[in-house]
Amino acid sequence: MTDSKPSSNHSIKIIAGSDKIMRRVSKLISVVKFGGSSVKNIGRIQHVAEIVKTRMEDGPVLVVVSAMGDTTDYLIKLAHQASSKPDQRELDHLLATGEQISITLLAMVLRNMNIKASSYTASQVGIFTENVHNKARIVDIRKQTLLDSFRDNEVIVVAGFQGVTTGGDVTTLGRGGSDTTAVALAAALGLIECDIYTDVDGIYTADPRVIPEAKLLERISYDEVVEMARLGAQVIHPRAVELARQYEIKLRIRNTFKPEHTGTVIDGGEDMEVYRTVSGVAVDKDQSSVCIMDVPDVPGIAGEIMQALADKNIVIDMIMQALYPTAGLNNMTFTVNSSDLDETIDALEKMTGRLGAKGVIFDSDIAKVSLIGSGMAGQPAVAAKLFTVLGKNKINIKMISGSEKKLTCVVAASQADAAARVIHEAFGLGDREGT
Amino acid sequence: MTDSKPSSNHSIKIIAGSDKIMRRVSKLISVVKFGGSSVKNIGRIQHVAEIVKTRMEDGPVLVVVSAMGDTTDYLIKLAHQASSKPDQRELDHLLATGEQISITLLAMVLRNMNIKASSYTASQVGIFTENVHNKARIVDIRKQTLLDSFRDNEVIVVAGFQGVTTGGDVTTLGRGGSDTTAVALAAALGLIECDIYTDVDGIYTADPRVIPEAKLLERISYDEVVEMARLGAQVIHPRAVELARQYEIKLRIRNTFKPEHTGTVIDGGEDMEVYRTVSGVAVDKDQSSVCIMDVPDVPGIAGEIMQALADKNIVIDMIMQALYPTAGLNNMTFTVNSSDLDETIDALEKMTGRLGAKGVIFDSDIAKVSLIGSGMAGQPAVAAKLFTVLGKNKINIKMISGSEKKLTCVVAASQADAAARVIHEAFGLGDREGT
Repeated sequence: MTDSKPSSNHSIKIIAGSDKIMRRVSKLISVVKFGGSSVKNIGRIQHVAEIVKTRMEDGPVLVVVSAMGDTTDYLIKLAHQASSKPDQRELDHLLATGEQISITLLAMVLRNMNIKASSYTASQVGIFTENVHNKARIVDIRKQTLLDSFRDNEVIVVAGFQGVTTGGDVTTLGRGGSDTTAVALAAALGLIECDIYTDVDGIYTADPRVIPEAKLLERISYDEVVEMARLGAQVIHPRAVELARQYEIKLRIRNTFKPEHTGTVIDGGEDMEVYRTVSGVAVDKDQSSVCIMDVPDVPGIAGEIMQALADKNIVIDMIMQALYPTAGLNNMTFTVNSSDLDETIDALEKMTGRLGAKGVIFDSDIAKVSLIGSGMAGQPAVAAKLFTVLGKNKINIKMISGSEKKLTCVVAASQADAAARVIHEAFGLGDREGT
Repeated sequence: MTDSKPSSNHSIKIIAGSDKIMRRVSKLISVVKFGGSSVKNIGRIQHVAEIVKTRMEDGPVLVVVSAMGDTTDYLIKLAHQASSKPDQRELDHLLATGEQISITLLAMVLRNMNIKASSYTASQVGIFTENVHNKARIVDIRKQTLLDSFRDNEVIVVAGFQGVTTGGDVTTLGRGGSDTTAVALAAALGLIECDIYTDVDGIYTADPRVIPEAKLLERISYDEVVEMARLGAQVIHPRAVELARQYEIKLRIRNTFKPEHTGTVIDGGEDMEVYRTVSGVAVDKDQSSVCIMDVPDVPGIAGEIMQALADKNIVIDMIMQALYPTAGLNNMTFTVNSSDLDETIDALEKMTGRLGAKGVIFDSDIAKVSLIGSGMAGQPAVAAKLFTVLGKNKINIKMISGSEKKLTCVVAASQADAAARVIHEAFGLGDREGT
């Protein structure tokens, strides 16, 4: 029973500007990111422009924006009308238009307010990625190109979510990639903070729509939020948090519609109270389990299976391998995002014959419920309490996975919210102040 | 009374490929362009893909497409919600997304048909323009970049209407610019023809919606069609025709929805029957007249006025300068596209004080009705007949302008269709075969 590590080889080469003035300027730049719901229509873009104007009091502003509202979903729908299996290069090229629309509109609104603002695509500002479509990783950002774009501008508006290969092809960073864009740009500029404006107040001890007693956290560590975000908190993309940790950038999650609120700060958490055992409960319903049955127990086979999925950029989360009672055969079970389910089954079925496995079964009616907390390590009582409370409430646990900062149970999708509620109550998460 | 010449300094530098194989390939490439109504939705894009597939029998195909249906209008509306006067750089950057969407969708549909197709923006394929927004002209296309994109593709789909500056800013070529893109690409590849697929059968002796007797022309010269297009025939953009003449590229206007029809060929017309005096009647209702009153009759003043308008990229068509009966004062009247009217008035009103002029008046309720024909030169009887038939039908002529190939009358907008009808009938344009 292991847990796959979130990938973290973001090797951003920062080509530092040699000239002193530029370095001075770069210190003053604020990097702020606004999500799709914050730029859903022109009215909201105008509201965002007002926030940007306020932020200009501290110096030049680099704004990263997502596509307006449901634009990306609409473009994906169009692509699926065009082709049952849209070409990945073309899909990225199509999706990138979403952010190109939002950046130009925000720049227009800012210019209408007499603010010198210009919009830049990833290609124009030089956000280079690996040559992979749909889930590309940033490999290089040219600091000098960024600084040059500030020569005639007080504000530069950069398209989130997208990148460009050295060959000039447009790529995208995957869902939530705009957060990653913002943090990567802050890192490239050598900054120590980055603000993520979204449509919620910050990070809670649990989803407040499900558990009204959930408390807003004033501060949380990178580690905890990565565990949370991967499990459905959906406030900030885990890749962005990984990158922020790597470059020691303090993230602030703020509500676009309550800009006066301070929200939640995400940082290393070094000086946090060590006795905060658990910090939150997260639910992820967008999960399916897949089982490849009767795999011969021969060395290297697990690696072969994982490689086949990695080749298709399918991220596996929980993995469970139980030795079958008879004759050296394994059942290998793991969880994937439901959106990857068809491709996962497809890839595995192609392998069953060659591997001598019996077949592939799956269950798309599951959810992961996780308890997160930095102080959980070496506290077996936490796990005991968790399993006990679920058992008492007649919630059947299908799979279990644990790390130093998280305990995850796979349960039936229909029982996930109830599970989160009883866990939240049992650990008293709603009772205390959120820090 | 003069007529401004259509601008024609398209100086496309063609950087020829040195290698022989590439030159052989480039001879086989077909360049075909599809307008916005041809790619209005996925169903129509699939239809376009079928035509492209048929065209592949002759070799590789370079497809130029416009934005889907009303996308450009929608984006312009968004821009005007964002700003009362959208920044031109940002507007071009926004509008370019329209073609980026249509090229990617067409490439996806083609790939779904197992055709190796890829989409390219102007920036990716290297369509360089001058550093002017909204109405930029192409200055350079790299032949080798084009040929390289055919290395792994049978079809390349290029965004029409857009270009890029050497600094990397996105530009647009102005309305109808996709035609220009197609012809410029054909020229850069050293080709001798280019097909323009649209939603009509070809070019008629008059607008068939107004004059049902109008005949389809099988062939027409560059000169005639330029005069027609500028006056509202709206089948092909005059800049594209100018460019085709310069590079001696035969254009074929074809109906996307009747791909088996041959449509209208546009070429030099050298071997055309010399006695075809008139070839058509065109109406342009999108016109306004502007008059700057009591301009002192001092040398250089007319030039100064024209320069002020040229600086704003406003194209002036008819110009009339009548000497006032008293005291060396002129009224200078000219026609502009109605979309340029506000900016024209604005520019002129700023000058009146300095010039000592009395003021600016305008009339947006006018239309131009033109009779076009290569054989009209030196035939005063044509003009006489034209004015007589209008007079007989009580249609008042407000302005007259003439060239070797065209006679234009400005009339009240409400009388324009009636004027076209009586002219079409008087010259027997509906009676004869259309060649």
